[in-house]
Amino acid sequence: MANKKAIYFDNAATTRIDPAVLKEMLPFLKEKYGNASSKHPLGFESREAVNKARRIIASSINANEKEIYFTSGGTEANNLALKGVFFASQHKKHIITTQIEHPSVLDVCKWLEKEGIRASYLNVDSEGLISPLDIERAITKDTLIVSVIHGNNEIGTVQNIEEIGRICRQKGVLFHVDACQSYGKTELNVKKQNIDLLTINSHKIHGPKGIGALYVREGIRISPLFHGGGQERRLRSGTENVASIVGFGKAADVLMRTKEKDIKKMELLREKLIKGILDIGNTMINGARKKRLCNNVNVSFMNVEGEAIQGYLAEEGIYVSTGSACSSHSLEPSHVLTSIGLSEMEANTSIRISLSKFNTEKDVDKLLDVLPEIITKLRRMSPFN
Amino acid sequence: MANKKAIYFDNAATTRIDPAVLKEMLPFLKEKYGNASSKHPLGFESREAVNKARRIIASSINANEKEIYFTSGGTEANNLALKGVFFASQHKKHIITTQIEHPSVLDVCKWLEKEGIRASYLNVDSEGLISPLDIERAITKDTLIVSVIHGNNEIGTVQNIEEIGRICRQKGVLFHVDACQSYGKTELNVKKQNIDLLTINSHKIHGPKGIGALYVREGIRISPLFHGGGQERRLRSGTENVASIVGFGKAADVLMRTKEKDIKKMELLREKLIKGILDIGNTMINGARKKRLCNNVNVSFMNVEGEAIQGYLAEEGIYVSTGSACSSHSLEPSHVLTSIGLSEMEANTSIRISLSKFNTEKDVDKLLDVLPEIITKLRRMSPFN
Repeated sequence: MANKKAIYFDNAATTRIDPAVLKEMLPFLKEKYGNASSKHPLGFESREAVNKARRIIASSINANEKEIYFTSGGTEANNLALKGVFFASQHKKHIITTQIEHPSVLDVCKWLEKEGIRASYLNVDSEGLISPLDIERAITKDTLIVSVIHGNNEIGTVQNIEEIGRICRQKGVLFHVDACQSYGKTELNVKKQNIDLLTINSHKIHGPKGIGALYVREGIRISPLFHGGGQERRLRSGTENVASIVGFGKAADVLMRTKEKDIKKMELLREKLIKGILDIGNTMINGARKKRLCNNVNVSFMNVEGEAIQGYLAEEGIYVSTGSACSSHSLEPSHVLTSIGLSEMEANTSIRISLSKFNTEKDVDKLLDVLPEIITKLRRMSPFN
Repeated sequence: MANKKAIYFDNAATTRIDPAVLKEMLPFLKEKYGNASSKHPLGFESREAVNKARRIIASSINANEKEIYFTSGGTEANNLALKGVFFASQHKKHIITTQIEHPSVLDVCKWLEKEGIRASYLNVDSEGLISPLDIERAITKDTLIVSVIHGNNEIGTVQNIEEIGRICRQKGVLFHVDACQSYGKTELNVKKQNIDLLTINSHKIHGPKGIGALYVREGIRISPLFHGGGQERRLRSGTENVASIVGFGKAADVLMRTKEKDIKKMELLREKLIKGILDIGNTMINGARKKRLCNNVNVSFMNVEGEAIQGYLAEEGIYVSTGSACSSHSLEPSHVLTSIGLSEMEANTSIRISLSKFNTEKDVDKLLDVLPEIITKLRRMSPFN
């Protein structure tokens, strides 16, 4: 049973629904239950609610509402983006991505390779930064698309997508950005940043799980993953998930109103955490020092298993993660941590502390209070000492 | 704005969430927000809830819990079933289906045809019944799968899936059943009926939208539509939609407890509706007279536009549909109605009245009270008179 007073530092995995979001959803889980495709007032009401959410989300990334397609989440949106443009393309057979993508991009690329597409997985530097110049060099006449994760889900490194977008547009190559982690935590502007396809989702921004969106710039050729009733302007068939779309829209609305304040707050907490953790000694912050998501701290504690730290913290009612929740199905060390140069052993000593607007300085103080003792105890037990 | 006292007869499009279902979901939209893949108590709690729902749903169709894969709904499950088995198959290149499938099967078959698969769309009789013998005759050495809709979404005809299942198993051909409409409304037993893949969803049984499941019999080779984090035993990546899965599980639980009583109630209402509508004169019930879903009435009113009837009924606070909500994106006459022999004109004179357990005899009486006058008025205005 989860501790009700627990301190939740696993916001990169998922976030608590904002009460304002749930409030907006509830009528659509109760009396406003119409199918958005139904041609009676209960349907019209749902259609209107879906369209309103679409407008809010479009405006939050400076897109047009016709460019927003709702999906069941970030994984579907990433799959749709990459498979969709290759299904729709007759000629170009090359994709460029990085070694630190989320599995829903990396594993799609591996699948595309089996289908005859060539994939280039570019290296990143020790901070997890991709060089725009490397991307420029990797582009060939055969390149259809470049796909880059904006804010990394494990180490929080934020890429220079504006520069990458400029290069892609100049070279006539599509540019897809996975912004699941960065949405609401740093600037996103599809026009300014020359983004052609953008993945965002709801449950990382205090909205419900099971809903996300793909932005597709008008005029881009893309084929559906699902065939059927023709919803979402024929790109994504399936009865619209009205309540969750409404919740996603409200989460985006709240985010636009409060993100400046929230980002500043999380940055302060992040810095306090980093300083306190470095003070423990024999610790190392993974990821970029400056170009970093406001809510991410990823740290290696020499000679200690990250899983053990996670377990001891959970006993204290503090929930963090090791690596990312998505890769927790695998026993392999994090591909992101090894890509920035960590050894397997170093990678396994890491935990990820990820903040949300709901975290307080008290939460941070509590963590910094109990952590040194846990680390000392674990280091004493460690076979490496 | 929808009328709060409206009578809702569009339950084949979607249903009202059962209050008991919402109650079960709410903790997972509030304090139990963990990612089911997270390795801390908040995650474990979500994982346990997902597994509980999986067990309930498995038991509702006599499957094993390992055979249930959650999807974002019926459309995804149908796409996954059919594309998935062909992606995983090296040799067999033929699918058999019927002319009255839901678009999420028909349009997938059309897409498969572009990918080099041969598709046979079998005829149905004037009641919408498929002949098991026709299926047996259509099976060749190259046939991988037969896909049949159990209870038709427009006309309510229920197919003899046990006999079709027997033939498929005997011939060594996979059998997929789209049971979105029939789930909870007639017998479903994957073992007894020899079903290899089965699509069900939540929002047709008073659960939330945006969640469904595909049953895949153990041992069947199937490839994923989404690649990524490896959730759902690698068949369906993406953060688990915990609250909706919990809601789906509760809806299945309620359904198992009450379906016998609910089916009987709906059958009585359906029969009263059919009798009352036939009494209006120059009306025709579409679909099977006996082998029919307990909640479906599809009727053509000679010389009247179905859309006009729908509009006038909505003014009285009675919500029905024309054709199906899913095909309402198209202006074409219903492919189901033309397949059972209706002319384009006859198809356009039809409405679908679909019941749920929440409908009462009073609802039916109200409809039968206002409908004759509406039909008389519309017939008077009709250019065909």
